Amino acid sequence: METRSGDFYPTRLERPVENVERIDPVIHSTGKDRQKGPLSEAELASYERDGFLVFNNFLDQATVQKFREDLRAYEDDESILQSEGTITEPGKQEIRSIFGIHELSERFDRLTRDPKILDMVHQLLGSDVYIHQSRINFKPGFHGKGFDWHSDFETWHSEDGMPRMRSVSFSIALTDNTPFNGPLMLVPGSHKTFIPCVGRTPEDNYQSSLKKQELGVPSDKDLNRMIEQGGIKAPTGPAGSLIIFECNTLHASNANMSPWPRSNLFFVYNSVENQLEQPFCGNKPRPDFLGNRTNTEALRPVTETDMRRTG
Amino acid sequence: METRSGDFYPTRLERPVENVERIDPVIHSTGKDRQKGPLSEAELASYERDGFLVFNNFLDQATVQKFREDLRAYEDDESILQSEGTITEPGKQEIRSIFGIHELSERFDRLTRDPKILDMVHQLLGSDVYIHQSRINFKPGFHGKGFDWHSDFETWHSEDGMPRMRSVSFSIALTDNTPFNGPLMLVPGSHKTFIPCVGRTPEDNYQSSLKKQELGVPSDKDLNRMIEQGGIKAPTGPAGSLIIFECNTLHASNANMSPWPRSNLFFVYNSVENQLEQPFCGNKPRPDFLGNRTNTEALRPVTETDMRRTG
Repeated sequence: METRSGDFYPTRLERPVENVERIDPVIHSTGKDRQKGPLSEAELASYERDGFLVFNNFLDQATVQKFREDLRAYEDDESILQSEGTITEPGKQEIRSIFGIHELSERFDRLTRDPKILDMVHQLLGSDVYIHQSRINFKPGFHGKGFDWHSDFETWHSEDGMPRMRSVSFSIALTDNTPFNGPLMLVPGSHKTFIPCVGRTPEDNYQSSLKKQELGVPSDKDLNRMIEQGGIKAPTGPAGSLIIFECNTLHASNANMSPWPRSNLFFVYNSVENQLEQPFCGNKPRPDFLGNRTNTEALRPVTETDMRRTG
Repeated sequence: METRSGDFYPTRLERPVENVERIDPVIHSTGKDRQKGPLSEAELASYERDGFLVFNNFLDQATVQKFREDLRAYEDDESILQSEGTITEPGKQEIRSIFGIHELSERFDRLTRDPKILDMVHQLLGSDVYIHQSRINFKPGFHGKGFDWHSDFETWHSEDGMPRMRSVSFSIALTDNTPFNGPLMLVPGSHKTFIPCVGRTPEDNYQSSLKKQELGVPSDKDLNRMIEQGGIKAPTGPAGSLIIFECNTLHASNANMSPWPRSNLFFVYNSVENQLEQPFCGNKPRPDFLGNRTNTEALRPVTETDMRRTG
C-alpha cells in the first residue's frame, strides 16, 4: 500500500482497505488534569464511550439573539460578503456560511476563548489548543440540504494534513433543533474506528465538497456495520444548546423539510501538539479558512475585563 | 378565472389563486352509520380534527413477514417485473414500487377487503367504496429519496378527475418506522384547506412526478402558514402499524439516511359516489394503475371461508 510514512490513518486510496482501530486516546488529559473539571467523570466517560456530549441551554437566549442579529447584519457588510470564506445563496445576498468567523467577529472570538469552554477543551485534548476552523451557518426553512455521513477527521487528515485524532468540534444551536429541520445525527461509538474512504482526491476538492461531499463518505457496508452497532442519535433541544463531538465521530444531517430555519455556530479546536502537516492525500493544502495553519498559537481565555467591555 | 363548471377545487392554473375552504365533510357517514363502529367517537373526532389516525401493531408480525416475502418473490416474477405499474431501480431487478398490487396479489386483495378495514372505510366515506390506487413500496437503506409536501387529492383531482374530497389512504408499515428512515410526516388540520398549486400540467406528467413531484407542491408561504398552525407529526412505530390519512392531508417524507429499509403497503379507497371524471387539468387521464376507472364496483368483505383458504 503506497502511503506516506507516519500516516497512521491511510485513506482516499484507489481500492478499499481494512478499517483501522483508533490508535489515539479519546480523552488526552490524564491524572489530575483529567479530574480537575469542569467536565465530570460521568461526562468524560460518556464522551469517551459515545464520541459526543450534549448540553441544553448552554448559551442564554439574549446571547443567542445577539449572534442571530450579527448574522443578519453581515448581509449588509460588503467586506464580509466579499470574503472567500463567505458562502451565499446563488444569485442572492443571503448568507449560508461564513468561515473564519472567529477572526471577523469579536463576539465569536470571545466565545471561543470563554474560560469554561477552554477548560473543557483542555480537559479533552490535554494540551494548549487553537482554532482549526470556525463558521456560522444558516439553513433556511424548506430548502436546507442534507449532508451525507462522514467523519470530519477523515477530511482534515487527508485534505488538511491533521496527523492525529486530537481535535474536537463545538456546535451551538442558534435556533431550536427539532426532528424536522435537519438536525445533526451522530453514530455513538463510531469515533473508535477509522474508516478509510475510497477514491483519489482531486485538487481543490473543497470547492465542490462544501456543497455536497462525494469523497470521504464511507461505503454503505461500513456505515451499516457502524450504525447497527451504535445506532443513531439526533439531539433535539432549544436554541442555545451545545453539542461537543469528537473529530472522528460519524455524523450527517437530513434535508430541512420544515419552515423553521436552522442556524448554528461551529468551531473546532485542535491541539497545538497536533499541528497540520502536508495533506496526506498529497494535494496542496486547503485555504486557511478551512484548515487554519497561520494563527496556531495557544488560545488564552478572555478576562473578566474583556467580557464586560463588549458583553 | 378559467375553470371547468363543477370544479370546486381549481388548481394548476398559471397564477396563484386564493386557498379554498374545504366544502366536503371529513367524515361522510352520519347518525347511526357514524355511530356503529368500529371507530369510536373519540377516534372519529381525532380524524376529523387532524386528518389522520394511527394504530400501532394493526397487522401481526407473521402477516407482515408474509407480505415482505411476497415482495422478494416478485423480484423473480417476470410478469410482475414487466408490468407497467412496476417501478424498479435503474439497471437492477430491485423493485421500488408495484402499483395495482391488489389485482396481482390475492393476499393484498383480501387485506383491502378485510371486514374490519372495510367497516372503518364505510364509516369514514359514508357509502360503498372501491380501490382508487394500491401499491407496495420498498425503499432501501441510505438511498431512499424523500418526497416534497403535497396533498394527494390535489393530484387526484387535477390529473385523475376525482371530483370531491371523499377518499382515504391506508398505509401499513412492513418495516419499523423510525425517525431516521424517512417516515411519513403529516400536517395536522391541513385537510381542511385546499391549497391550489401553480403551473399548467404537461401531458404524461406522472412519468416524472412518480420520481420527484414538481407540480402540485404548495408554495413556501402556504406551507409555512399550514405548518405554523398545525405543526408536523411523524408517527413512528413497529412494523405492522397502520396510518389512515384523509385524501387532502398535507404529507411528505425525508430521505432515508439510515441503513434500515422502509417498506409499506399503501391503498386508497374512493367512494362509489365520487367516481372519476375527466381530469380537471384538461389532460387525458393517467393510466389505470394510478387512477383506477375500470374496476369501480363496490368492494365486498372477504368471508371467513376466503380467509381460512389462503391465510
